Amino acid sequence: MKKKAVVLLSGGLDSATVTAIAGSKGFEIYAVTFDYGQRHRWEIKAAKKLAAVMKVRKHLLLKVEMRKIGGSALTSNMKIPKKRKCSEMRKNVPATYVPARNTVFLSLALAWAETLGSKDIFIGANVVDFSGYPDCRPEYLKAFEKMANLAVREKAGKGLRIHAPLIKMAKADIIKKGLKLGVDYSLTHTCYDPAERGISCGECDACILRKKGFKEAQTVDPVRYKK
Amino acid sequence: MKKKAVVLLSGGLDSATVTAIAGSKGFEIYAVTFDYGQRHRWEIKAAKKLAAVMKVRKHLLLKVEMRKIGGSALTSNMKIPKKRKCSEMRKNVPATYVPARNTVFLSLALAWAETLGSKDIFIGANVVDFSGYPDCRPEYLKAFEKMANLAVREKAGKGLRIHAPLIKMAKADIIKKGLKLGVDYSLTHTCYDPAERGISCGECDACILRKKGFKEAQTVDPVRYKK
Repeated sequence: MKKKAVVLLSGGLDSATVTAIAGSKGFEIYAVTFDYGQRHRWEIKAAKKLAAVMKVRKHLLLKVEMRKIGGSALTSNMKIPKKRKCSEMRKNVPATYVPARNTVFLSLALAWAETLGSKDIFIGANVVDFSGYPDCRPEYLKAFEKMANLAVREKAGKGLRIHAPLIKMAKADIIKKGLKLGVDYSLTHTCYDPAERGISCGECDACILRKKGFKEAQTVDPVRYKK
Repeated sequence: MKKKAVVLLSGGLDSATVTAIAGSKGFEIYAVTFDYGQRHRWEIKAAKKLAAVMKVRKHLLLKVEMRKIGGSALTSNMKIPKKRKCSEMRKNVPATYVPARNTVFLSLALAWAETLGSKDIFIGANVVDFSGYPDCRPEYLKAFEKMANLAVREKAGKGLRIHAPLIKMAKADIIKKGLKLGVDYSLTHTCYDPAERGISCGECDACILRKKGFKEAQTVDPVRYKK
């Protein structure tokens, strides 16, 4: 019997790649997507499409009322930063940072993992081409893993792992890896501030990092950009 | 200006006492209650009543779809254990344990704390008169606190504390402490399996521990029991 893995599938490029990686390692995939009141709800549609075509055993969509908490440009009416250079992105934690988002998502993934009898949780966190979010760093993920092992029944906790296979990969390498594993990036959604029909703005941090990645991977990005 | 504290207020005896303790320490209280599909939804009404009469600056009610995850008698149709002896309760993690519940709740409390600029989160976890839940143990709370410090912006994380003032108190002492601080226990709800109009069953672990606590505190429990 295959081992079960819970995979955080936002619908973006990284999480699609992680889903493919978990599958290539022989795990049976239980993908979870969060409807947390994000401005770019379009990514939820992308997650559904990805779950339908990838080898996902079960896809769980969970609502989390993070808009009631706010504190981020993604969950309130704050402005999304645009046209920033990559070097700028790392200087300060940007307005798109959502307080404790990965902690909330990993906690719910942990709840599902314990219920399923899974000891493996996959997340697409990355510290190379990223926006300086504190909850993407390896030391944070290590601390979460340690906490998770104590949080659940002894049997469930022992050896529970948070896998972040992209953590130190450049965006271009993530894309190359995904293409090798057959990921259809036309189904993914990355933009924080999409226009009608999910067309990417091309100017938010997420778009800029994605475009840079495809350029460096010397391959065509199949999603449409406004700019 | 008063320091802000986020307090997990379930509506039960312990969380009501913790709210009073946080207030007595001079914190401005931001109470959060979770509607997680619990069978004993009655406790949400209790939390609202408590928040209304206690010194709570803001009361946030957050829905979390834990019923979609299941794995517990509180969030599925599994049977609630009844008439168990206290000594029995500690032997195994019971069916009322909800996978990763405190981790999910503390994570959302952390998100709110970071947004509010609070560094103090209060929880009514207890390891004396308790049902053997892994996510009530001091070593778990310590690991959560460490993780939380890394999860958020550097400024927000530094010195962030998870307070569990009841952790090593007997239920009777919790009750005595609460009465001294003016907690109105008639407004609290403890039972996992209430009958109509929130009347407590008197036979679930939660009722048994509560009744024992009031007996040992030599004071009258103001809530109504069926048995």
